[in-house]
Amino acid sequence: MDVSFVNPFINSTIETCKTMLNLDVEPKKPRLKQDEALEHDISAVIGLSGNAKGTIALSFTKKMALKSVSAMLGMDIKVVGEDVSDGVGELVNIIAGHAKQNLTNYELSISLPNVIIGIGHRIQSISGVPTIVVPFSCEFGEFTMEITLKTE
Amino acid sequence: MDVSFVNPFINSTIETCKTMLNLDVEPKKPRLKQDEALEHDISAVIGLSGNAKGTIALSFTKKMALKSVSAMLGMDIKVVGEDVSDGVGELVNIIAGHAKQNLTNYELSISLPNVIIGIGHRIQSISGVPTIVVPFSCEFGEFTMEITLKTE
Repeated sequence: MDVSFVNPFINSTIETCKTMLNLDVEPKKPRLKQDEALEHDISAVIGLSGNAKGTIALSFTKKMALKSVSAMLGMDIKVVGEDVSDGVGELVNIIAGHAKQNLTNYELSISLPNVIIGIGHRIQSISGVPTIVVPFSCEFGEFTMEITLKTE
Repeated sequence: MDVSFVNPFINSTIETCKTMLNLDVEPKKPRLKQDEALEHDISAVIGLSGNAKGTIALSFTKKMALKSVSAMLGMDIKVVGEDVSDGVGELVNIIAGHAKQNLTNYELSISLPNVIIGIGHRIQSISGVPTIVVPFSCEFGEFTMEITLKTE
């Protein structure tokens, strides 16, 4: 995996959270995902294709997703419904879109986001394709980005 | 949504299950997904981009996924692990690849599959983008395809 692929997604996440949520987020050290079962409640996933193929997933606890979307919309969201799925879907869409602009070595196109809702779900990529995990922390708690990429 | 987009995915699913699983599957009537919360245990999701953007998700109960991957590998798989995520990921990859060849009106590229594992998870697309649900039945039970598409 081309690790230079990771930084544009980290930078885009920091900028997008600042702009959209007025939230300072701090990335922790990226790591290669090994045999770990990362469990999430809400994930927003978007596909990348072109001369690199992959996916970006942003994953949250329920509490973290509700707080993030509340900050995004400027109103108190207490239930996981359309506001939350649209909110986290829009976040991953904007993050992927901005990162793409800075990945000038690649010709990428971006699919539509999907949002997965389910307590304790896991996201698996297919064998042989590496996934980089980037944890982020902020005043609301922690969330995780998983970047899976296969370059041609 | 261009409904002519749906048939190539249905046909590709029928052919792929026959070839890869030696399994006859029967599509039921496609329907527009409304406010229904379809719950799944294992889903394989792949993104589409190009002059149409979207995602294809194949969703299974745990039992149906184990039986399908057992048929695919010709051995009895009893635990949801890498065999299952690779198996259902490969299925959606092949289905999307074959369907793409028949969607000659579109220039599509396909991302990598992701597999979601989590009892009772739901998949949401973002508001305003229609999702077509196609249930399939076979001797192992039922599974569902969700096709979300936005044409330019």
